[in-house]
Amino acid sequence: MNYKIDNLQYCKWSREVFQINRDAGLDAVHVTIVYHENYDEFLQRIKEWNKLFEENSDLIYLGKDYKDIEKAKIEKKTAIFFGFQNCSPIEDDIGLVEKVYQQGCRFMQLTYNNQSLLATGCYEKTDSGVTNFGKEVIKEMNNLGIVIDMSHSAEKSTLDAIEISKKPIAITHANPSFWYKAKRNKSKTLLKKLSESQGMLGFSLYPHHLKDNTNCSLESFCDMIARTAEIMGVKNLGIGSDLCLNQPDSVVNWMRNGTWTKTKNYGEGSTQNPGFPEQPEWFKDARGFKNLENGLIKVGFNKNEVNGILGNNWFNFYKEIK
Amino acid sequence: MNYKIDNLQYCKWSREVFQINRDAGLDAVHVTIVYHENYDEFLQRIKEWNKLFEENSDLIYLGKDYKDIEKAKIEKKTAIFFGFQNCSPIEDDIGLVEKVYQQGCRFMQLTYNNQSLLATGCYEKTDSGVTNFGKEVIKEMNNLGIVIDMSHSAEKSTLDAIEISKKPIAITHANPSFWYKAKRNKSKTLLKKLSESQGMLGFSLYPHHLKDNTNCSLESFCDMIARTAEIMGVKNLGIGSDLCLNQPDSVVNWMRNGTWTKTKNYGEGSTQNPGFPEQPEWFKDARGFKNLENGLIKVGFNKNEVNGILGNNWFNFYKEIK
Repeated sequence: MNYKIDNLQYCKWSREVFQINRDAGLDAVHVTIVYHENYDEFLQRIKEWNKLFEENSDLIYLGKDYKDIEKAKIEKKTAIFFGFQNCSPIEDDIGLVEKVYQQGCRFMQLTYNNQSLLATGCYEKTDSGVTNFGKEVIKEMNNLGIVIDMSHSAEKSTLDAIEISKKPIAITHANPSFWYKAKRNKSKTLLKKLSESQGMLGFSLYPHHLKDNTNCSLESFCDMIARTAEIMGVKNLGIGSDLCLNQPDSVVNWMRNGTWTKTKNYGEGSTQNPGFPEQPEWFKDARGFKNLENGLIKVGFNKNEVNGILGNNWFNFYKEIK
Repeated sequence: MNYKIDNLQYCKWSREVFQINRDAGLDAVHVTIVYHENYDEFLQRIKEWNKLFEENSDLIYLGKDYKDIEKAKIEKKTAIFFGFQNCSPIEDDIGLVEKVYQQGCRFMQLTYNNQSLLATGCYEKTDSGVTNFGKEVIKEMNNLGIVIDMSHSAEKSTLDAIEISKKPIAITHANPSFWYKAKRNKSKTLLKKLSESQGMLGFSLYPHHLKDNTNCSLESFCDMIARTAEIMGVKNLGIGSDLCLNQPDSVVNWMRNGTWTKTKNYGEGSTQNPGFPEQPEWFKDARGFKNLENGLIKVGFNKNEVNGILGNNWFNFYKEIK
C-alpha cells in the first residue's frame, strides 16, 4: 500500500483546499493550527477545526495515529494531524503538554525563529540549545507521543533535541543549505545527525526556501532531493510543502511578528517583498505532487523510493511515534 | 535628608510586616508581587495589594516615583514599589509592558533562573544573552520607566542588558561571588561593568547568598561590602534584603518550580534543606538595618557613605529612572 502525505501545510482552510488535497490524493496532512497563540487561543482554533470537520466530513477527519492514515486511504479522505509552529500554547506549564495532546496535537516546534522557553530559533544571534524547561517538555512529548519538530530552530538547539529526545524528531519543512543558503535551511552535519537518529526531513516548497525562489525549477528541486539522499539515505525523506494556500498577507505578518515587536520584522521577506511569495508553477498546490513524482523518477529514484518520499516514509515514521 | 530603602522583599504581606518595616524606618520597599504569574494572575495580585493598601493606609501606599519616597519620609509611611522576579506577566506581548507599568510595575527581572523569552537565567547550562524579543522589551521598559533587574540572570545576559539598555540597570538582590561562590552571586567583571554604567547592586541577606549561610557574621557581611566598594565605588551600592518573612515553604517551592517541571527542583536548597533557610541573628527582619549601620561604620565607612548604602544611593537611582 502506498500513502501520500504532505507533512506541513498552513492554508486558509476551506472546502476548496480540502478538495484540492483530495484531488492530489493526500491521505494525510500535518496542518499548522497555531503559531503564537496561547492556550486559550489554541482552544479557539480547536473549535474552528471542529466546525471544519463537521462541515467537510466527507473529505477530512482528525488523525490521531497512523491507523487513521490507513483508514483515510480506504475511505478516500484525508486525515488531518494537528501541529504547532511555536510552543506558545503550552505557555510555561508542563501540565499543558498533556492537555494539547488530548486535543489532538501530534507535532510541536520547540521554537519559531525567536528564542522560546524551550529552545533557540534560527533568527537569534546566539543559540543556547535546549533549556531546562525544554528538557522537561521533550520528556513529556516523548511519553505522550508528540513529535518534536525543529524546522524553525537554530542548529545547536536541534542537535540538542536529537540527543535529548528518546524518539526520532522531525524537521517537517526545510531544505538543505548546501542547495540554498537560507536561515531556515539546514546544514549537512545536522541532516546527517537527523537521519542517523531516524529523524525525518520534509522538503519545503515555500519559495523563500528554494533556490531561485518562485523561479526554482522542478529539476533543480528534485536534484537537490537526490543529493540529500546521498547524505541522509532515502528512508528519512518526505514532503512538508509549507503551502500557505489562499492566506492573506496579514497572516505572514502575524507569523513573523506575533506580538513580540512594535517595529515590523520581514523574516524571510523584505520591505520590497513583504507578503507571501508566489509558488513555483509546478507546485501551485498539492496537486503538484504529481509533478514531484515525475521529477523524482527523472533524477533516478526508483518507483519504490519515490513512493517513500511522497508519503510512505512519513507513514513509517508515524507508526513509530508512540 | 536621608532615606532608608530595602530594595527587595518578598514577605508574606501583613500589617505585622508593614509595621516592622516602619519600625525599621524604611521609607521605601521594592516588593516582589509576582514570580511566574501570567498577566491575568498578575491582575489578581494587584487586587490583593489594593486591599492591603486600603487596610493599611496609615503605614503604606503605592510608590510610583522618587517623589513618593520623599512623601513617605514626611508622612512616616513606607512607599511600596512593585516589581516582578520573572517576566511572565508580559507573556509574549510587547503591548503588555505598558499595561503592567500602568498598574505600577517599576522593576522587572528579565528572567528568573531559567531561560525566559527575554534572556537566560543563572541556572541554565548555556547563556545566549538577550533575545530578539528581549531587545524590544528593554527599549519599551526604558521608554516607560521600568528598571531592568538582572538579579537571577546569567552573566552574558546581564552584560548584554547593561549594553542594550539606555538607562542604568539594577541587580536588586545578590552578592559578589568573590565573597561567596553561589550561582546567584556576581563576578567582579560584571560588578565593574554595572557600576561603570551607573547600575546599582542591592546586597542580599538571603542565607543562600551568604558566606556560612545562616551563620554568616555581620562583620563578614560588612567587610564584603567594603571590598565590593573597592570594585564598584560606594555610590552604586544598596540593600535588597530578599527577606521572605513569614512565607510558608510552599512558596519557595513555587519560586523554584513554577509550572515548568514535574520533578522537584531545589534551587539553592537541597533535599535535606528544601525550605526557606533561617535568617542570620543580626538580620531577622528589616530592623536589622540598625545592625548594618553599626557594622558598616565599624568596617570604616563614614556616616555619609553608610547613609548612601542604606538608602540614599537607591533614592538617587530612583530619581533617574525616568
